[in-house]
Order: sequence, then structure tokens, then C-alpha cells
Amino acid sequence: MKEIKNHLEVNNNEKSNSLESELFRPIQENINIQDFKVLVDSVEAHKYKDAARAFIRTNPKFKENFIGLDMSSYRQLVLEQCEEFAKSGLVHFTDIKQNIFRYAGIVEMLALFNNNICTKLGVHFTLFGGTIMFLGTERHQKYIEDANTLKTVGCFSMTEIGHGSNVRGIETTAHYDPSTKEFIINSPTPTSQKFWIGGSYLHATYTTVFANLIIKGVNHGVHAFVVTLRDKNGNVLPKITIKDCGHKLGLNGIDNGQLKFDHVRIPRENLLNKYSDVTEDGTYKSQFSSPIKNFAATMAPFIAGRMAITKGCSGALKTSLAIAIDFSYVRKQFGPTLENEQPLITLSSQQRRLMAPLARTILFDLYVQRLTRELAQPKQPISIHAHCSGIKAIYSWHCVQNLQVCREACGGQGYRSANRIAEFKNDCDIICTYEGDNTVLMQQLAKYLLALPESKVQQPTIYLDGDDAKSLLFNFENIKRLFDQREQMRLKELKQIISNSKESSYNAFNNAIPWSVKLGYAHMNKIVFDHAITTLKENNVKPLAHLIMLDSLVTIEEDLGWFVTNHLISSNVAKAIPFLIQDLCSEVTKVSRQILESFDIPENCKAPSKDLISDLF
Amino acid sequence: MKEIKNHLEVNNNEKSNSLESELFRPIQENINIQDFKVLVDSVEAHKYKDAARAFIRTNPKFKENFIGLDMSSYRQLVLEQCEEFAKSGLVHFTDIKQNIFRYAGIVEMLALFNNNICTKLGVHFTLFGGTIMFLGTERHQKYIEDANTLKTVGCFSMTEIGHGSNVRGIETTAHYDPSTKEFIINSPTPTSQKFWIGGSYLHATYTTVFANLIIKGVNHGVHAFVVTLRDKNGNVLPKITIKDCGHKLGLNGIDNGQLKFDHVRIPRENLLNKYSDVTEDGTYKSQFSSPIKNFAATMAPFIAGRMAITKGCSGALKTSLAIAIDFSYVRKQFGPTLENEQPLITLSSQQRRLMAPLARTILFDLYVQRLTRELAQPKQPISIHAHCSGIKAIYSWHCVQNLQVCREACGGQGYRSANRIAEFKNDCDIICTYEGDNTVLMQQLAKYLLALPESKVQQPTIYLDGDDAKSLLFNFENIKRLFDQREQMRLKELKQIISNSKESSYNAFNNAIPWSVKLGYAHMNKIVFDHAITTLKENNVKPLAHLIMLDSLVTIEEDLGWFVTNHLISSNVAKAIPFLIQDLCSEVTKVSRQILESFDIPENCKAPSKDLISDLF
Repeated sequence: MKEIKNHLEVNNNEKSNSLESELFRPIQENINIQDFKVLVDSVEAHKYKDAARAFIRTNPKFKENFIGLDMSSYRQLVLEQCEEFAKSGLVHFTDIKQNIFRYAGIVEMLALFNNNICTKLGVHFTLFGGTIMFLGTERHQKYIEDANTLKTVGCFSMTEIGHGSNVRGIETTAHYDPSTKEFIINSPTPTSQKFWIGGSYLHATYTTVFANLIIKGVNHGVHAFVVTLRDKNGNVLPKITIKDCGHKLGLNGIDNGQLKFDHVRIPRENLLNKYSDVTEDGTYKSQFSSPIKNFAATMAPFIAGRMAITKGCSGALKTSLAIAIDFSYVRKQFGPTLENEQPLITLSSQQRRLMAPLARTILFDLYVQRLTRELAQPKQPISIHAHCSGIKAIYSWHCVQNLQVCREACGGQGYRSANRIAEFKNDCDIICTYEGDNTVLMQQLAKYLLALPESKVQQPTIYLDGDDAKSLLFNFENIKRLFDQREQMRLKELKQIISNSKESSYNAFNNAIPWSVKLGYAHMNKIVFDHAITTLKENNVKPLAHLIMLDSLVTIEEDLGWFVTNHLISSNVAKAIPFLIQDLCSEVTKVSRQILESFDIPENCKAPSKDLISDLF
Repeated sequence: MKEIKNHLEVNNNEKSNSLESELFRPIQENINIQDFKVLVDSVEAHKYKDAARAFIRTNPKFKENFIGLDMSSYRQLVLEQCEEFAKSGLVHFTDIKQNIFRYAGIVEMLALFNNNICTKLGVHFTLFGGTIMFLGTERHQKYIEDANTLKTVGCFSMTEIGHGSNVRGIETTAHYDPSTKEFIINSPTPTSQKFWIGGSYLHATYTTVFANLIIKGVNHGVHAFVVTLRDKNGNVLPKITIKDCGHKLGLNGIDNGQLKFDHVRIPRENLLNKYSDVTEDGTYKSQFSSPIKNFAATMAPFIAGRMAITKGCSGALKTSLAIAIDFSYVRKQFGPTLENEQPLITLSSQQRRLMAPLARTILFDLYVQRLTRELAQPKQPISIHAHCSGIKAIYSWHCVQNLQVCREACGGQGYRSANRIAEFKNDCDIICTYEGDNTVLMQQLAKYLLALPESKVQQPTIYLDGDDAKSLLFNFENIKRLFDQREQMRLKELKQIISNSKESSYNAFNNAIPWSVKLGYAHMNKIVFDHAITTLKENNVKPLAHLIMLDSLVTIEEDLGWFVTNHLISSNVAKAIPFLIQDLCSEVTKVSRQILESFDIPENCKAPSKDLISDLF
């Protein structure tokens, strides 16, 4: 690859009124907590969120112990919590289509408390609800009323055990029988069993089933159907077998099941016929010219689920960071003398490991607000699928990595279930691989980027070099150019690796997956940053500039080898980065408790006490 | 910092008979599994390990289900498993002092199965046993016989809730009463409660207690005492209160307790008097001139515990890698066509994420063999404390990070408890913070390195540059020089940061902790590599050279920004590294199942089936 060496002289010392100017001064220690709260909560959702907070604070079901509960009792408790919440009217079954701000907002708030609840509600509202609302028509409105208050629970039978992320490969069939005007839902092989179906083992009345629609031997591809699983007494209907998926690393409040259908007959009208339908006599009619297009349209609504999942990460991480930071302020260990032990928060390592994820979590949340706005538009941008996939992947990896950091930052007390981080960590872990394995999602994003028309605008290249590294780096325009250029070069690099391969196109792409993931990160880092800067320009709430700069430098440091070897940053500038990060962590620490206050986390979401040792003799 | 630019021309194309020569050819696909097994098991321990494997394979208690067991039943099962193992005679209570090879070997094997068992035995044999064997004298031999077969269980009361890693700050007191010739053990404050004491809540008869020895108002510092917790019927003795630490993220088969002593009287002879003693009339006699020296000697034996802990990481990680790699060979997902799905192992990303930790785990194991040999010597090297601390920190972080990778590599099936990775992951998590928080241990290592006399030998500097990056990097001498030089420069850097600080020496060191951790890694990476090369020279077992090179390049990539900005590697050479890593991962994949075979993991340690879905309808 030809090296790019276009040295630019950049000097920004004099930007005294710029967005960056405050970075050069000690941090303003009194931030406006209310303004910052609205920023993080979003203009569209903050009132819904406050209502959800009030509910969590006061509802008795949210005060019951769930630590160490056996699986059966835990599942019952989570069901009851979900029912209480659904009955509160704070969320509606139609929200996934009609008020995504409310829906996303309440999921985030429930995730501050416990991911089982938002996962169970997510299956019902986003997945079952999404299928009904987006793929159904007038004839499926009848499900809404009872589903709205969880009088009936719905689940979502897409994944098969033999076909995880590769939904097109599912084997379940729906043969149409014109003589009775019914579809026959069948699991033809062991690998066609629906697996991991949340809510199915104990509670669901209905499920939407994804199956190959077959008429007179012709397979029209994957379509969605409503199947009733249980009668009014909760008994599983004949020809349907449901088994418990068993104990899991986390989310043991969710009754995941495996489902087998043995020629289950359902009425013709149970086909969700928004895009394609079958007439009584068995004629297939579709808005699309091919099964693959119908498949794409059928899958499209669920992209909102990938956005919603990030809310689970956001809630869990904010509460866990709050627990760890609170603990770091009260827990003392070591000091200049044996008698003068200091709080952990005074340690540079503790500041480094907690402030960087705090900053990133806020930036990710701001970006998800943007995605939610895009999803709320009648015509969504073409990028929406790639970006929901990308943020789901990078947010869940960020979440799992930093829940671990929070656990370790609290030492042994972080290991005790009563102190909550353990549960968050285990519950969130699955997010990395469900709703699309993260590595697969990053490949989808890379494929989207590879397919974009090449920009004809030749961007000027950037090379950050000079003695005053701080001024060069504390400059959002320079950061933007670094991120833009990295994305362009990573894209070009991936294209070259694939085109230089002597193997089949399938193998060429496969051999380059690690580079696809790198490109995915380069793209997502860039757009998260761009949106943060847009937000900052509209609304310079303190300490947003500090958080953006901290996260930017951490992002650069994570890929520092690349930035330097590709001559975007000089050695001299690169060497300054760890020191600037440490300084920024120290500054952000000063306002960290105010940031936590702006999260307005109900006390019953957190550990019983800030020192995590409420239960001494 | 002054930049070092000493360009060296290095060309090794012609080393056809060198250790590296095989790296330039396709990997030899038939490795000698038996030779490789002895290498990984160690010459000293492999027979003990085989005996332990045979026991695990056949003992009925090791075939009972523990998945999803309630805490009380799980604790009982683990106790019974420990009793069975202790009765087998495969390990002796005196091993910690007299046959550390056997002890370390069996811990590793038990960790292949379940970390609860080796943790519970570890507390009894390493901690309680270590105290008796190393700090006790003839008068304490009486505890050995029953402890040998677990007829009596011992635990270890060092940690207090207010004083985790900072043992010198503990508050428990042992006042000597000459009138009755007794010590009075007391917990004077809530924060002095002994906490996390494994085995104490249900099973332990004895504990060793660390307390401040006080005679006539004079505090002689921390000493160890034997205290009886329970009578022959298992009832807790008067004036001792024990409470359950409760449900934890993992290790719920261990009965951790919190202990409070209310003026508990014990005989004078229960002081473990190897170094210091109190005469009947209350005269303190010590081999040491100061309490701090006595404290250091008292703590020294437990350094073997830090080595033993890495065995827990090793066992858990080897089984989990085996599960994930086996799964990747049988699980198909996606492919060039919908009908032609390919096994996950064919994906470059899967090879990358599983082969790199496989290589590192083996290299770490080889290094721990070396440490074990050092511990077995009558006179241990002065570095032993720092190196046991360092390997405990980096092995446990490696373990936790890659158990996560294994979990994700198995998708949803990795999340099911029945498939074992979940349990390993949760059980091992605590290793990062117990027996010394990793960040604290890395600081101890850094302090050791800072205190070493400066080498007067001026090493020639290295700068890897040239067109043939592969030949430059596939050269162990070059790698060695890179690692040596990084360590020297990291040490110099840390010294400069501390000496340039305008703050107190305590604050100066505190502000530099992230750099201490970096130095710790640089040192440990170097010595792990050095030992691997020594091993390779003595015994060139295939594919050791490949594993060393793979791990070396991954290590360089992890700190690539530093290597490039500090001019040890040119941009051109740096750019080749990800491609060489991918090639090596692909080569190692070819022999990965043979490597797994050499681990000789009993089937009952692994998942019920390789495809992780044994329980379909």
C-alpha cells in the first residue's frame, strides 16, 4: 500500500472561544445536572424516563429480593414485574411502531434495574410486537388489546438450533392446505427446532413463527405466522412440544424454551400478510418479485431490536459504573502511611479504568438517540440497518468489557451477588451473540461499506506532527480528520485484501474478517464522534467536550499502532496521548459524582450500600 | 525522552537449520502428541497428573450433576469431591512444602474439571497447610494427620473487610495473658471482621488467624495463630460468630464466611512460632529485628499460592478452549451457498480468536513450570515474589478475557450452563482480585523492578526495518531484543515519570500506576518468552516454535503503538504483523485438535457433546 505522507501544519493555540477552549483550563466543577440529565435522557424521552424511574422507585415488586433465587421463583418474579409494568400504561404494545422514543426510553430505565425484565418485555414488545405491528395487517389487530397489558404474552420463534445467525437457512415449514384453508407448521428435522425462544417455556400464549411457506411443493421462502401455543388454562396445545433450555450463565429469570411443531394446523389468516399473502385457493401473491426481497422486507423491522438491545447495555453499565465509582469514593486502601489510607478513587489506575468507559457510555447513548430518531422517521436512511448492527456490536462489547472492569474495580465486593454488578455482567453477556453474533454484524456493516459508491471527493490527508501535541490533539477538527481518514484507509485496505486474494470471493471475504471488524470499528467510532460533535455544537453542556475528547483519545490509543504506522500521527504526538488521557481522566473524575447524579438511578437499582458491605455483624 | 534510532540491518533468510526454519514451511501436521503432552504437563508432574486424570475420569462423585444446583447442595457436593480426592492419597498435606510439583499438578487437573474443588482444596492445602507447614514448628505437627485426608478441614483468616490487599493494616488483636498463658483473639471493630474466609461458614474445624500480637500494650505486628472454630460435632465454639458471605458471581460451591472473634482464648502454643515466639511469662522473642521483617517472613510462604492460582486459570482455560475448538469444528453456519454451510473453524475470525489464546496458555504453563522449579529449591531466587505476583496477574487477566472469547465463540450454546464455559468463567473471575488485586500485584512487580540495580551493560538498540518483514520477525533473536529493549525503556520511562513529578513520592508513584502496569507486562512478556525459547532449545517439540512466534507477534501487536512510536519497529514491518498473525493462526489451526488431544482432558470435564446441543427432542 502506498504510504501517505502529507505533512500538515496545524496550530490551534489561539482558538480561545472554540469548543475546545475549556479543555485547556481546569474543569468547571459545578456542572448543570439537570441540563446534563436531559442531554443523556434525550429531549424526546426524558419525561417517559422520569415516569419509569418513579415506577421503579415505588412499585413493591421492584423491591423484592432476586439474588440467589431459584430459577423457577425468579421466572415468576420477572413475569410479575413485567405484568406490573405493562399494566402501568407507561409503555404500549403499539409503541414499537408509533412511539419508539417511549419504548426505547423505558427499556433503558428497566435495564438500570435488571436486564431480565427488559429482555422479557423486549421479546414481547419488540419481537412479537414488531412482527404483529410491522408484518401484520388489519386482521391481526385483535392480538393488541390483551398483549398491551400482558394479559397474553407473546414470543418470537425465529432462531433454530441448526441456524443461529443464518436465518435464511431455517428449516421449519408452513405447507398450505387449500382443502382446509390452513397452514401446517412443522419441524421436519432435529436441527429445525426453534431454540432459545424467550418466554416460550412457561408464559407465552402466542408465538410468531418464521417458516418456509410452501404451496404445492414450491418454497416461497421465509414468512411469519402466528401460532397459539397454549390454551386459556396455560396448557400447551397438542402437537406442540416445549422444553426448557435450562440453566444459563445469566438471564435465569427468562424461560427460554426449545419448540417442536408436529404438523400444527393454523388458519390461513395467521400468515402475517403485510407484504405477501396466500389466497384461499392457494395462490401466492407478493409485493416482491423474489423470495430474497420478501425475506429482506420481513427481517427489516427487527433492526429496531438491535437499537433496543443497546438500551440494555446502557442501563446495566450506567448502574454498574455508578456502583463502582461510589465505592471508589468511600473505600479506602493503602496510603502514604498505614494510618492514612486513601479512597480508591485517588488512584490513577482507578480513574483510568472508570472514567474512560463513563465517557464512552455517554457518547454511545447520544448516538443511539440519533438512531432512534432515524428509526422514528417514516422513511429511514439506507444506512439504518448497518448502523443498528454496528452499534449493537460495539456497544455490547463495550458493555461486557466494562462490566468486568466495574466488577474488578470493586474487588471482592464486586463479586458478591448482593452488590448487583455480577448479575448485570452475566445477564448482558449474551448480548454479544444474540440478535446477530457481533462478529457477523460487523461483517454486515463492512459489506454495507464495501458496497457504497466510492466518494469522488479527494479528502486532504492529515499528519499530526509538532511539538505541542496537546494543542494538536485537543482539536476536534483534527480528530475528525483522523477518524475520517482512518475509515477511508481501512476501507481501501479491506478492498485490496479481498481483491488481491487468489481464492473464491467467499473465501477472500472470510479470510479478511478481522479486517472487516477493524473497518467496522473505524466507521462506528467516526459516526459516534461526528454525532457527539453535532450535539456539542447545538448544546455545549458541561462536561461534554471533556467526555468527547477523552473518548477520542482512548479510541486513538486503542488503534495507535495503526495510526502511527500509517503516518496519521507522528511518534512525538503519539507519545503524549497516554499522558493526556490520564489528565482528562483526572479532570472528569472531579465531576464524576455529578454525572452519576444526572443519571438519576433509583436507589433500588444499586447495591444496598455505597461501601458494598452493608451486612457486617 | 530522547529518541533512539539505531538502524540495524538484519537478514536471516539463510538460517535454514535454525529454530525458526520450520516457520517458513507449512506446519508439520502430525505432531507427537505424547511428547507434546509431557512438555505441557512437565517432566516432574506428568505422572501425578495422569493419576489425577484417572481419578477424575472414574470417581463417581465427579460424575454428579452440579449445573444449576442450589448453593447448599453444591457446597456439600464440593466438600464430598474434595474428601474423595484427599482420601485418594494423590496429594498430601505436606506437599506444599515437600512436593510442590505434585501439589501444583493436581490443582491444574482438578481445575480442568471445576474450580470450586481446587479452590476449596487450595484453601486447605496451600493456605491453612502453608501456614502450618511454613510458620509452624514441631508442636503444630499434630494437625497434619487428620488434615491430610480432610478429616479436619482448615481455613485461613487473613483478609479483613476493611483491609483487602493491605494486610499490614489488619486490626484483629491477639493479646497475651501471662496469667493463663493464653492469647485472646479479638475483632475490635466492624471493619476488623475476617471476610471471604473460604471453608469457614460450614466445614472448617480450624483456622489460622492473622492478628496483631500484643504483649503488655506493645504491638509486635502481624503473627499467625491456630484457632479452633468448631467442636467435634461441627458446632461453632462460643465467642465465635460466623456468617455466610452469601451468593456470589461464581464459586458458589465454596462456603465463604465472615468471622468475628469476641475475646476468644487460645493456648500460647497456638502461636505459629517458626520465626517469633512468646515465652510463658510474656517475653517476645523474634529472629527478626523489626515487626516489618517478621511480617515479610510471615507472608513469604504464601507466594506459592499465587503460583498455584495460575493452575486454576490453566485448567479452566484449557477445557474451555477445547470445548470452543471442538464446537468450531462441528458447528456449521453460513457458507458459499445456502446449502453448503461451513464449520466455524474455517472462519479467519474464529481461528484468530481461539489460536492466539491457545498459544499463550501453553507458554504461560511452561513459565509456571519454571516458577514451580524455583519454588522447589531450598534457596529461592530473589525474584520469586515479584514473578509469582506478575504471573498471577497476567495469567488471570488472560484467563478471564479468553473465557469470554470461548463463550462468545460458541454463540448461544456457550451461554448454557450445561456446556461448562459459563461456570468456568464465573468461577475464575475472582482470581483477578483475590490473593492480591491484579493492579496491586503489578505495582509490586514494578516496585521490584524499580529497585533493581541498574544494569551497566549498554545493550545495543534494535530497529527492525526492511522489505522482508517476515524474515525480520520470524527470528527469535530479534524478538528477544525487542522485548528486552521494551522492558528497559519502559523501566526508564517509569523512573522518569516518577522523578519528574512535583508531588510526594507516594503521589508520584500513584499517578504513574498505568505505567507500572505497562512495565509489568513488558517484564513478564519478556521472561515468559525467554523461558519458552530456553525450552525450545532444549526440546524442539512441534509445534512449539509456531506457538512461540504466534504469541510473540500477538504480544507485539498488543503494544504496537509503543513499539512503533519508540522506533523499535518500522512502519513497514509493523504493517506486516496482522497478516503474519493470521497466517500463523491458520497454521496452528491445522494441529489444534492434536494439541487438544495432548491436554488429555477427561470427557467429564467437558460439555456433554461437541456440538453443545446434546438435548434435542
